[in-house]
Amino acid sequence: MTASMASNDERLKFDSVWRGAHVATMKDGRYSTIENAAIGVVGGRITWIGEAQNLPDFEVLKVHDLGGGWVTPGLIDCHTHLVFGGNRAGEFEQRLNGVSYKEIAQQGGGIASSVNATRAASEAELVASAARRLQSLMADGVTTIEVKSGYGLSLDSELKMLRVASVLENKYPVTIKRTCLAAHAMPPEFDDKDAYIDYLCETVLPKVAALGLADAVDAFCEGIAFSTEQVERYFQKARELGLPIKIHAEQLSALGGTRMAASYQALSADHLEFIDEADVKAMAESGTVAVLLPGAFYTLKESQLPPMDLLRQYGVDIAIATDANPGTSPALSLRLMMNMACTLFGMTPEAALAGATIHGAKALGISDSHGSLEVGKVADFVCWDVESPGELCYWLGGQLVKQRIQHGVSHE
Amino acid sequence: MTASMASNDERLKFDSVWRGAHVATMKDGRYSTIENAAIGVVGGRITWIGEAQNLPDFEVLKVHDLGGGWVTPGLIDCHTHLVFGGNRAGEFEQRLNGVSYKEIAQQGGGIASSVNATRAASEAELVASAARRLQSLMADGVTTIEVKSGYGLSLDSELKMLRVASVLENKYPVTIKRTCLAAHAMPPEFDDKDAYIDYLCETVLPKVAALGLADAVDAFCEGIAFSTEQVERYFQKARELGLPIKIHAEQLSALGGTRMAASYQALSADHLEFIDEADVKAMAESGTVAVLLPGAFYTLKESQLPPMDLLRQYGVDIAIATDANPGTSPALSLRLMMNMACTLFGMTPEAALAGATIHGAKALGISDSHGSLEVGKVADFVCWDVESPGELCYWLGGQLVKQRIQHGVSHE
Ligand SMILES: [Zn+2]
Ligand SMILES: [Zn+2]
Repeated sequence: MTASMASNDERLKFDSVWRGAHVATMKDGRYSTIENAAIGVVGGRITWIGEAQNLPDFEVLKVHDLGGGWVTPGLIDCHTHLVFGGNRAGEFEQRLNGVSYKEIAQQGGGIASSVNATRAASEAELVASAARRLQSLMADGVTTIEVKSGYGLSLDSELKMLRVASVLENKYPVTIKRTCLAAHAMPPEFDDKDAYIDYLCETVLPKVAALGLADAVDAFCEGIAFSTEQVERYFQKARELGLPIKIHAEQLSALGGTRMAASYQALSADHLEFIDEADVKAMAESGTVAVLLPGAFYTLKESQLPPMDLLRQYGVDIAIATDANPGTSPALSLRLMMNMACTLFGMTPEAALAGATIHGAKALGISDSHGSLEVGKVADFVCWDVESPGELCYWLGGQLVKQRIQHGVSHE
Repeated sequence: MTASMASNDERLKFDSVWRGAHVATMKDGRYSTIENAAIGVVGGRITWIGEAQNLPDFEVLKVHDLGGGWVTPGLIDCHTHLVFGGNRAGEFEQRLNGVSYKEIAQQGGGIASSVNATRAASEAELVASAARRLQSLMADGVTTIEVKSGYGLSLDSELKMLRVASVLENKYPVTIKRTCLAAHAMPPEFDDKDAYIDYLCETVLPKVAALGLADAVDAFCEGIAFSTEQVERYFQKARELGLPIKIHAEQLSALGGTRMAASYQALSADHLEFIDEADVKAMAESGTVAVLLPGAFYTLKESQLPPMDLLRQYGVDIAIATDANPGTSPALSLRLMMNMACTLFGMTPEAALAGATIHGAKALGISDSHGSLEVGKVADFVCWDVESPGELCYWLGGQLVKQRIQHGVSHE
């Protein structure tokens, strides 16, 4: 071995190096700015990050000059109902023309219409319609997205929805986490909520777990959906099957779902407009992330704000998500939700960005590998055409993405 | 001349024919749906529109199959402050971190910072920064946009802003209407509002008119800006110079600006949260369009809604615009404003679409040629990847544009 070869061996080796931009790493939920940064990637993971001028001698297959702007972690949309048949633009229009919710429900509208359309759609049709929405979200910076079932409400159609999520992940450069939300609403075949929960515990959850089709289990705990007791039975089954849990709770009323979910070490409790201090305390103790959904708050013209001060006071991590769904939040931009988190909930742009990156990752149980730009983490990041990271929350709409890098590969 | 040649001469001749989609023409402010439509274009104007099956024998240079979806008139954003130096994302972030408006003003923030940055920027820099915003708006379906001056507040810098608008129109496939808003705020060189209005009447407006750099004149009539009397003096000069007028009025308080502007046959009165029945009546009589700006309403968390019922009752045409500006409405999507007009102001999707097409055209004085799809009008239209026109208002964000056609030429 020659001296020169030995020297070569000591040089850092990268598949790619990215430079020519500033970085907000979002480590510990802060901007943690690196000006004129460089990111070295090997095998889709970050192996070096810092100021470009401190990068030691290296070998690399390709150097990418980002040409200015700011890099942030790829956005993580940790709560969506992205897969559904049809859409409810017609109902949206009817309501604005003065048709009441009751009349719409009597016509078979509301969630029942999404269940019917989702059941009637083929897997390929669901992939095609969700793909259009997914591409909008990705074009605005999303690199990881959670997708819930919950418009099937039968074994076959819930499995179909979860398979669609898997197909989408194979088709597009995006990471998808699948959540079984079979306890979303009552299917038309059942009259009795307890009997439906029995069916989920005996038939649906075991099959979903056996097929490895879900990364977590979710339920809608609300007067119009399932009681705390019913959801708890379903969570017990999820725990037995080794699946982590999430909950839709305290959106419209206070039933104690959040507290109960925290006692099951829920990854997240979502919505939370009506939680109180005891709920917040329980979340802090269990490390449960508060997922706030300003798109639903806005669309439903809610007036009860989540208790932002209590969440901050107890150090509960706050994530922001689109809740993308055909009824209460037809949202196709996570950045717009970040603006709404600032404008409607009074969050700072830094906290909103943490909510759409590192805290979103935690809400999905993947904060060890995703959500911030650090050595060892997956190389998912976005270069934005902005002069400061605060602009991501500031602009309403707009095309700010210069490049979207997933697993170290650029998608311009 | 042979028989065959004579027959050829009788066939319709088009530069292009567009088919394969449904059309919402927006004639008279209604969807006026044509299913499976065809649009024939000659010289950038529509010469035939109807059901494709009724299209007579024709000759054409190119047939475009739109491949499904809905066509609407190109969106018209009739109120923007698109050209400015810098941005105010930093102030947005400071405010959310608890810094007061007063402290920000003391640091030289607010509109003064945009004036400083706009004055300091070269024409090329202003073109470059506005172009990014313009491209976002165009990507979401805008084919005509109004651009105001008003961050210059001196002869040279107001002319510079208006020239930037002209340059943008030459560089991009979009129609730009330029409005001189020199009476936007007080420049630092003046202490006395009347003296500044004198300067505008004696120096700025005559030069703007002589150079043909403005299609209309606008003023900000508000306690923090100019009084009704001051604005009236400026409008008298505009009338003398043959320039139509517009006004920012009754946004934060009721000063009577709207009524005064109506007496000058204003093309539009904009904002209007605080107008009363007499104002609405005056607008109806003068044919003044009510331009509503839900992005500013949302960003400022206003609580006073414009009097929607009165506007409807008196048949005042309502337009919707972005008010794109760095302080109170950093909005880069007119479709999002349409959603806000529905969600926050209770407009129907049909009315919101009329507001962003035919009524927007009227607010710019170009409804004879723009804003609806009819024979004789300019062939500016958008094909959207939607199943109903209501979806344009329904989705929050998203990339819905399939093709944007300006003057009969496609920009995919
Ligand atoms: Zn949800
Ligand atoms: Zn304005």
